[in-house]
Amino acid sequence: MLVVMKAQATPEEIQAVCDHIVQLGFRPHPLPGAQRTAIGITGNQGEANRGNLESLSGVAEVIRVSKAYKLASRDVKEEDTVVRFAGSNASIGGRDLAVIAGPCSIETREQAFAIAAEVAAGGAQFFRGGAYKPRTSPYAFQGLGLEALKIMAEIREKFGLRIVTEALDSESLELVAEWADVIQIGARNMQNFSLLKKAGKQRKPVLIKRGMSATLEEFLMAAEYVMSEGNYEVILCERGVRTFTDHTRNTLDLSIVPALRHVSHLPILVDPSHGTGRRDSVLPMARAAVAAGADGVIVEVHNHPESALSDGPQSLYPAQFATMMTEIEKIAPVVGRHLTRGVSVSAAAGQ
Amino acid sequence: MLVVMKAQATPEEIQAVCDHIVQLGFRPHPLPGAQRTAIGITGNQGEANRGNLESLSGVAEVIRVSKAYKLASRDVKEEDTVVRFAGSNASIGGRDLAVIAGPCSIETREQAFAIAAEVAAGGAQFFRGGAYKPRTSPYAFQGLGLEALKIMAEIREKFGLRIVTEALDSESLELVAEWADVIQIGARNMQNFSLLKKAGKQRKPVLIKRGMSATLEEFLMAAEYVMSEGNYEVILCERGVRTFTDHTRNTLDLSIVPALRHVSHLPILVDPSHGTGRRDSVLPMARAAVAAGADGVIVEVHNHPESALSDGPQSLYPAQFATMMTEIEKIAPVVGRHLTRGVSVSAAAGQ
Amino acid sequence: MLVVMKAQATPEEIQAVCDHIVQLGFRPHPLPGAQRTAIGITGNQGEANRGNLESLSGVAEVIRVSKAYKLASRDVKEEDTVVRFAGSNASIGGRDLAVIAGPCSIETREQAFAIAAEVAAGGAQFFRGGAYKPRTSPYAFQGLGLEALKIMAEIREKFGLRIVTEALDSESLELVAEWADVIQIGARNMQNFSLLKKAGKQRKPVLIKRGMSATLEEFLMAAEYVMSEGNYEVILCERGVRTFTDHTRNTLDLSIVPALRHVSHLPILVDPSHGTGRRDSVLPMARAAVAAGADGVIVEVHNHPESALSDGPQSLYPAQFATMMTEIEKIAPVVGRHLTRGVSVSAAAGQ
Amino acid sequence: MLVVMKAQATPEEIQAVCDHIVQLGFRPHPLPGAQRTAIGITGNQGEANRGNLESLSGVAEVIRVSKAYKLASRDVKEEDTVVRFAGSNASIGGRDLAVIAGPCSIETREQAFAIAAEVAAGGAQFFRGGAYKPRTSPYAFQGLGLEALKIMAEIREKFGLRIVTEALDSESLELVAEWADVIQIGARNMQNFSLLKKAGKQRKPVLIKRGMSATLEEFLMAAEYVMSEGNYEVILCERGVRTFTDHTRNTLDLSIVPALRHVSHLPILVDPSHGTGRRDSVLPMARAAVAAGADGVIVEVHNHPESALSDGPQSLYPAQFATMMTEIEKIAPVVGRHLTRGVSVSAAAGQ
Repeated sequence: MLVVMKAQATPEEIQAVCDHIVQLGFRPHPLPGAQRTAIGITGNQGEANRGNLESLSGVAEVIRVSKAYKLASRDVKEEDTVVRFAGSNASIGGRDLAVIAGPCSIETREQAFAIAAEVAAGGAQFFRGGAYKPRTSPYAFQGLGLEALKIMAEIREKFGLRIVTEALDSESLELVAEWADVIQIGARNMQNFSLLKKAGKQRKPVLIKRGMSATLEEFLMAAEYVMSEGNYEVILCERGVRTFTDHTRNTLDLSIVPALRHVSHLPILVDPSHGTGRRDSVLPMARAAVAAGADGVIVEVHNHPESALSDGPQSLYPAQFATMMTEIEKIAPVVGRHLTRGVSVSAAAGQ
Repeated sequence: MLVVMKAQATPEEIQAVCDHIVQLGFRPHPLPGAQRTAIGITGNQGEANRGNLESLSGVAEVIRVSKAYKLASRDVKEEDTVVRFAGSNASIGGRDLAVIAGPCSIETREQAFAIAAEVAAGGAQFFRGGAYKPRTSPYAFQGLGLEALKIMAEIREKFGLRIVTEALDSESLELVAEWADVIQIGARNMQNFSLLKKAGKQRKPVLIKRGMSATLEEFLMAAEYVMSEGNYEVILCERGVRTFTDHTRNTLDLSIVPALRHVSHLPILVDPSHGTGRRDSVLPMARAAVAAGADGVIVEVHNHPESALSDGPQSLYPAQFATMMTEIEKIAPVVGRHLTRGVSVSAAAGQ
Repeated sequence: MLVVMKAQATPEEIQAVCDHIVQLGFRPHPLPGAQRTAIGITGNQGEANRGNLESLSGVAEVIRVSKAYKLASRDVKEEDTVVRFAGSNASIGGRDLAVIAGPCSIETREQAFAIAAEVAAGGAQFFRGGAYKPRTSPYAFQGLGLEALKIMAEIREKFGLRIVTEALDSESLELVAEWADVIQIGARNMQNFSLLKKAGKQRKPVLIKRGMSATLEEFLMAAEYVMSEGNYEVILCERGVRTFTDHTRNTLDLSIVPALRHVSHLPILVDPSHGTGRRDSVLPMARAAVAAGADGVIVEVHNHPESALSDGPQSLYPAQFATMMTEIEKIAPVVGRHLTRGVSVSAAAGQ
Repeated sequence: MLVVMKAQATPEEIQAVCDHIVQLGFRPHPLPGAQRTAIGITGNQGEANRGNLESLSGVAEVIRVSKAYKLASRDVKEEDTVVRFAGSNASIGGRDLAVIAGPCSIETREQAFAIAAEVAAGGAQFFRGGAYKPRTSPYAFQGLGLEALKIMAEIREKFGLRIVTEALDSESLELVAEWADVIQIGARNMQNFSLLKKAGKQRKPVLIKRGMSATLEEFLMAAEYVMSEGNYEVILCERGVRTFTDHTRNTLDLSIVPALRHVSHLPILVDPSHGTGRRDSVLPMARAAVAAGADGVIVEVHNHPESALSDGPQSLYPAQFATMMTEIEKIAPVVGRHLTRGVSVSAAAGQ
């Protein structure tokens, strides 16, 4: 259910409606829009009774949301969500394309800084690097953990790049939320509902990668888990699904970009590195992602892919990354976008 | 096996090598390139003995082709194949983007002409329309057959558009080859090897749609069936594969475009209409296809999609088609392409 | 639409109803049942008007069939279809399990006879062997053609085994219908609608293999194509579908057996050889097929699998085939079945 | 790497080898077999040096294990693993078929006891019931949690049934390990590596359900994560994978049973309830699972499926469960198995 407030509703009226919803045993989710505020109502004791809500001061109308996803739905919030980062011009969603780049894993301080220098020079606004790695084998390199988080915090200081990194469980979630700018939930954890709820209690944006066999609805329900806990800054990321094909590691399903756009207000990124698993396909698919209307891309870049501890074959060389930036910059205007290279950090910076 | 001729080899020398290959019990496939001619050797009695071939006059070297596909492979022909149409500037492959547009089915002369006028005005070079329809149900509209072919021949005369239409079996193949410009083999027939062989005996270009669960190699082997019969003008077309997803009718696998480009010299089109099954996804995916490096697109356009006899929900309105043309025209230069709208028919026209 | 005749309706009344349906521009399909005859009505000019049909003599009721498949539906024919073979006790469907066994391809007369002797000794009632092979590569062994059909006709004479073999196109269809007992339509041709229609005009049973990515409805619509032409002896065969898995060649979808049984009266076989592609999985999956309620199995057996011209790795050794027969014989009674080994040919035999 | 001890090696010699492995910086996993003990060596600093290991007292040979999974591999342990439950005759793996049955969710004490009485009467040895439910929607019933665990502990006391229930995260894992007999890791958490490691530190058997798009190798690597932490009692469970098919909720991939058996010593169960999602397919697929060689089945049973809080459409009625038991009991001997109904609890019982 959704309470749409009148355009001129006061903060006090909005608060009063929220209080009333709490008294009914539900959870209110005030979502400010360009024209007016809407208040999503969630809870698992069935639907709230709409009757008395409509009579409250400042309420325009009460609407039933029929889709399984509520807060993630465009029915509840018409305008596109734009995730902004205080103290910088970096954003995800909206007119500016977001580019997140970096190595699969943080291997050493030197490697991380060398790659960060390249991706900053290339114009990325975000740096990605694995601190906690979900590896298929328990005997494979599992990431440097906290040490990697600290290295990336230094990279933010030095290059102004905002940091995106994956959390695997409660422990790493706390640390990622403390040290990074965006908490990534990986494809393998897209239906780790316990982790999603915990991410919903954090106050950092959450980037959710689509599970390998997730439907559009399941993908949005993962976002809903985070949002239902009060964290509305959720970013969706297509990264390829599992099919019978063997010419790529996964099948990048770009058609989910317009399909998600149609039903949800959340930003949508595309990961052509995991989506294809082949360096020479990353550039064409990054172009295609932007042309399909994605809000940006996340790509793996490595200065020595041939000796990377993980995902070498799909990592771009820095020169390839630079070419990618040039090409998506040219495609951006066709879809009403712009690529603003790099990050201007405002005086008030620090996160 | 592949015989690479010297750059200065004479036609007589090439002929002599071909004759020798025939004597060995194999089939020669002379494939002229920019620098030199290569002669592919096929046959199912195992590999020819390379020994005496290397000693023939004009032969530069003899190379073993290790992939299952031979004539379709870039190992055998390095330059991209461009399919040209005599008497017009229309082409598929090469620098110019090809756009094939029209209704799913030819329903009436009026409908076909009305749509043809729109797609010609929009700048397409090719008209598509089903004469023989592969319908899941025996009780569904099966197409107007020869009558539709005749209507499309009139459309070619009037609008200069080249005609692409599907053949289902021996009987329709003969007629399509007689009346149309490009013989389409549908996804359901991609492994109808008997039909592919018969298409290989025709002297019209053959457009093969990827089967719903075909791997890259199987797709190229379908092309190889046509080429092994001596018809080298084969056009590949990605049209979506079948996966678990439910937000689109099929999953458009754009990543096969760079993957095919890497290993084959054949032109590659994309069909975002069947690939998504949703009108509002066709435009984003057409842009994405061009950005991914496709040689063009094939789309369904209908003047009254809501009353179409087949595939209405995925057919573009004429105005949407015009928008698509404008947008892919802008993306084309980023990938070294150009959209030349419409067809100039030379004085010597007639097909 | 379906006309259910009264139990006591006379042949003349049935004929009169059929004649009336023809006059209405539709095609009648009289389907005798245990209690009464039903007459299916098909045609692609929409639904017939039920009005005057109900008033005809001998008509009990007229029913609308809402599923896309009509003649294949259990709504139209409640009792299981049993395909019988004149002059022998062999049958497919019903209480007796059918076992079809033999090599992937007929390679030589000696090979075929040696294997036929083994499968006859093992208790199979049907012999399978490829005469026309749908090979992925145009350069691979394509089958011995008519020669193979003649060898199999000799095998029928000598061992009493009924012959099942694949037709690929119009030409091979005519020959298979002439020389064999069951016309097989392969998975790659499951939506070769032209071939299905032609098979529907033959008067031999048609075994249709499920396409690699066919849904249950598409599978039944393939049967419907054959039946709509008047050939009601259709046998369905699950042979594995294409998925992301890599531990088997295909994923054998045994759950389609009860699902088909629920909605269709047609017999259902399972092919664990193509379904798994691994010899050591054939026996467990053959047992599982019978336990799931299949009407029988079709398996590849070869006396020298290691030197087979095709599909060696999935072919059973004769001793493994004998073990399979023993084990499915034991499972049969649990599902109300019986394995009658071999074929008693009646005095009136010869077909 | 694997150290195979001599048949007559003493416990002291085995301990000495383990100590030596620890000194090398690796982890030893002593795995007693029928003839001799093998000691698996794991660690993520690369391979241990085999040299000095071979010279230790009691060592027969040192073998390199080439597969990605080590402890789960039959190369490391040849005999089938049988998971036994102290104080009862219940077991999973080995000659006796294991049957786990119960409702999707524990809804009330009354519901749970009523269903437990039915499944105990039907002959199951294990009771399943969800306490912590991984629901797609945050607004759906999430399970009764600890209250459900306590109800199931009472059920164990009253009926002698061993309890199997799912853990979702660290918190529920601790509780499930305390109150239940088998810790289930659900399909959505199959690659929640953090949870798998924590389960590996518990000393209760762990049942891992195959992920919806997991390959055989990924499935065994999930087991490896648990085993690498020292918990060797892992049970695998096929529950259907996600494919294009729409006639069942998932596609039950029974062919993984013989494929897993071939390469791993771990017990393999099949879940035909989630595997099909349709009550009328559960019985045929349960029979098929046993016929394919599974070590048992896990099925959902509900006394009032039509009003179940979750998964009603796939839950068996008690009478259907009883029929299933009768039928799999008959199939068991064909595959060298036996169905021992119910649980004899020994005097020393209590867990």
